[in-house]
Amino acid sequence: MNGAQSLIRTLVDSGVEVCFANPGTSEMHFVAALDDVPEMRGVLALFEGVVTGAADGYARMAGKPAATLLHLGPGLANGGANLHNARKAHTPIVNVIGDHALPHKPLNAPLESDVETLAAWTEGWTRTTTDTARVGADAAEAVAAAAAGRIANLILPADVSWGEGGVVADPAPIAAPLLVEDPVLAAAADALRSGESTALLLGAAGCLERGLRAASRIAAATGAKVLAEVFPARIQRGAGLPAVERLGYLAEQAQWQLTGVKHLLLAGMAAPVSFFAYPGKASELTPEGCAVHTVATPADDVADALERLADLVAPGTEPVLAEPSRPALPTGELTLQNWVEVIGALLPEGAIISDEAQTSGLVLPAATAGAPRHDVLTLTGGSIGQGLPVAVGAAVACPDRPVVCLQADGSAMYTISALWTMARENLDVTTVILNNRAYAILRVELSRVGAESAGPVARSLLDIGTPDLDFVKLAEGMGVPASRATTAEELAEQFRRALAEPGPHLIDAVIPPLM
Amino acid sequence: MNGAQSLIRTLVDSGVEVCFANPGTSEMHFVAALDDVPEMRGVLALFEGVVTGAADGYARMAGKPAATLLHLGPGLANGGANLHNARKAHTPIVNVIGDHALPHKPLNAPLESDVETLAAWTEGWTRTTTDTARVGADAAEAVAAAAAGRIANLILPADVSWGEGGVVADPAPIAAPLLVEDPVLAAAADALRSGESTALLLGAAGCLERGLRAASRIAAATGAKVLAEVFPARIQRGAGLPAVERLGYLAEQAQWQLTGVKHLLLAGMAAPVSFFAYPGKASELTPEGCAVHTVATPADDVADALERLADLVAPGTEPVLAEPSRPALPTGELTLQNWVEVIGALLPEGAIISDEAQTSGLVLPAATAGAPRHDVLTLTGGSIGQGLPVAVGAAVACPDRPVVCLQADGSAMYTISALWTMARENLDVTTVILNNRAYAILRVELSRVGAESAGPVARSLLDIGTPDLDFVKLAEGMGVPASRATTAEELAEQFRRALAEPGPHLIDAVIPPLM
Repeated sequence: MNGAQSLIRTLVDSGVEVCFANPGTSEMHFVAALDDVPEMRGVLALFEGVVTGAADGYARMAGKPAATLLHLGPGLANGGANLHNARKAHTPIVNVIGDHALPHKPLNAPLESDVETLAAWTEGWTRTTTDTARVGADAAEAVAAAAAGRIANLILPADVSWGEGGVVADPAPIAAPLLVEDPVLAAAADALRSGESTALLLGAAGCLERGLRAASRIAAATGAKVLAEVFPARIQRGAGLPAVERLGYLAEQAQWQLTGVKHLLLAGMAAPVSFFAYPGKASELTPEGCAVHTVATPADDVADALERLADLVAPGTEPVLAEPSRPALPTGELTLQNWVEVIGALLPEGAIISDEAQTSGLVLPAATAGAPRHDVLTLTGGSIGQGLPVAVGAAVACPDRPVVCLQADGSAMYTISALWTMARENLDVTTVILNNRAYAILRVELSRVGAESAGPVARSLLDIGTPDLDFVKLAEGMGVPASRATTAEELAEQFRRALAEPGPHLIDAVIPPLM
Repeated sequence: MNGAQSLIRTLVDSGVEVCFANPGTSEMHFVAALDDVPEMRGVLALFEGVVTGAADGYARMAGKPAATLLHLGPGLANGGANLHNARKAHTPIVNVIGDHALPHKPLNAPLESDVETLAAWTEGWTRTTTDTARVGADAAEAVAAAAAGRIANLILPADVSWGEGGVVADPAPIAAPLLVEDPVLAAAADALRSGESTALLLGAAGCLERGLRAASRIAAATGAKVLAEVFPARIQRGAGLPAVERLGYLAEQAQWQLTGVKHLLLAGMAAPVSFFAYPGKASELTPEGCAVHTVATPADDVADALERLADLVAPGTEPVLAEPSRPALPTGELTLQNWVEVIGALLPEGAIISDEAQTSGLVLPAATAGAPRHDVLTLTGGSIGQGLPVAVGAAVACPDRPVVCLQADGSAMYTISALWTMARENLDVTTVILNNRAYAILRVELSRVGAESAGPVARSLLDIGTPDLDFVKLAEGMGVPASRATTAEELAEQFRRALAEPGPHLIDAVIPPLM
């Protein structure tokens, strides 16, 4: 058994069943070994940003890591932006990064680079395996390291992969999330009972059903305000679940939401900060004089902490659940308001929304609050180009659920070849491109950073409508059936049809920019 | 004057006139300042791999650096693969990497990451400017650092950029390339006069006219064999220039080329090594018992060294120049042989070829050896996705010369949005996609690494024809007129027409895979 065979067998034994891959020569033995271990599904992507984003989306939904297969330093670099998003989402991922054979490393061949330095940027677990007999054990450790919500980087020199003497390792023990200690919860309960204005902020597992229900009980019993983090990795929503507003993206929104709060309880997230800094504006959003209580960090068992806290302050209180309700189907030219009403009116039961709609999606949460129960996966790290790949991964993880990718046009272009993987794997993803022909968010930001003097050159750098991107052709060029919608009626008809048919579809929805 | 304004003014004063950009919020003051310094041309790309690849192509042709504008760590990561190619090409590039405002850095905002660690991977010059008054001076130093053939990374926190107190700096002195000392050349001359088989290997500036002519004189006078490096950053070719064969990509080819050589003279490159390691095959390609003489490193004045060496061993000898000759226009279904004959038959005077044809281009050099004088830019670092962006940069650097991008299909998809920048800037680039619907090179490599057991799963991971990529639609979706060629006659007719019309065109040439 060679190193590659021991690696794949160990990964499978450790519960890793999917490998998103963009291989090269140094990974050929890994590729060859896939036929020996049929339990491992290889999913090919044409660019590594799709590979890593798909692994992120997969793990957010599957609750366990996928592997990736990346080609030396440049392959890891290409995957870096979506690994950044995954890191911020606390997503477990096991990167298998091929490298030159050990004796080849010092020769400065064209593809030689310092892979370990690059891997260090992910702030995860990194190991270069230099002994074929250790490949299995290192792989098992990588899975366990990833399970703690980190990126695990296993760097695999080609000769270690092709060498004989591989040993399959047993799964390594996976640490359970830490239980929050009673005094922490007692202090939080005191704050909730203080009679002062209190906000409970939810992140990580706090945004899933158990956490949401517990938080709702706490709110019902104490009057505390409940808010979710700006960009949750995964939040469960819709009829039958407590409706929780998210903190606003703009600092002013979040500050307004937290006005007058005297106690901030953090369950699964850190104290809120603004996305960017702005001249003369605050970066830290905790109100002056507000006490901050960390109920649970993202590494803790957030749901358990919230349930125990609810049992302290809200025994016998039931959560308040959203009633089913949908917007009416709108009519007329597409607007920032009516396209989300179409989605809210037609969103199917059990949908998974990959939301990278950016400025076009500002009012999406309101329009879908009473839709059938669904999951929303958001842009955790702010590195654009996440929506399409995350949709790929979610669809691989949940083949029986409809995936809806709501994707801003500018952001789509970083990882557009995700559409090809959707076609290749016949994934049931309905992508709606919000095509406003601008980096609209940067128009907002240009004014917010105080760059009022911006002239025509600056403005032209935020305009991606010269020439127009035709997403119908782009999708068809990669094997995804596509259509264009300019009215709410067209969007509704096309969205309904796309949902009814299996496999991927794309709708190029032409909408006005926010500004 | 704010920091951004002082930065752009200093860059322009230091000779940097083009900035390839994919900006975000932290770069908004840089963008706004572009209107104040009209000498700086901002060229927008939809993905950072296009930004950095274009900067590489620009500098290869302009002989001086462009700037890039990148958005924090993820923007730099996305640009990393083509920075890797640029590093291996010794290309000067000045990256301006926006970062969070200094007080915002410790808050772990979503886009926070360790930019300096990431920048370290480029093995270049890196500095984070923390004082607005230093922005200009640091920018001037960055240009000087880049001029030595390195990546210069200037990390610019947003508040340092927006702060007042910027000071424009004078250009920093640029170190001239080192002159090779006489004894080194005398030793090389002794080897050339030894009567033993000698090969002169050319890299860096050795592949440009002065170096080629000197090398040809040396060969004519001494019988030495002259070969260029496998993947030169830029090589000048065609009628009226000495014809120089390149070392083969496969180790066996290079070993065959160097059979029996007793003295290896290196002018602008290191001793040859194989691209990848293979089980049981040599990585170092210098023949057993062959003496290696470094005539000049890439940092030396390679052309000067070659000319002085030629004056020692070949006084009065003239170089041997290629005669004009073109293949006849072929007919029939496209093959690996006849498509390059079409290019050779029709290549216009002064063309710049961005060559990422991979396995499809194996016989390209022979077909173009007697074509009108042209430049060829190749895949220096092996990180695929370089061809289209390099073509963008070359076209920006040389607006009066036709650019021909010969691009393999699989490699094209990493940076396909370069087509949009070609359309936006109306660049005179004719792209020919060699569409064989496979990672054909990996089929070769799969057999070469000894993975003979590869089964259907492995083989399917190298097949990108399910579904077919339709590059006509992809190009049209980004505003580039496109057509498909399946015969030599169609390719000739479409290539001729594309060259005759200004602006970008794409031809989707459907050819069989090498294997």
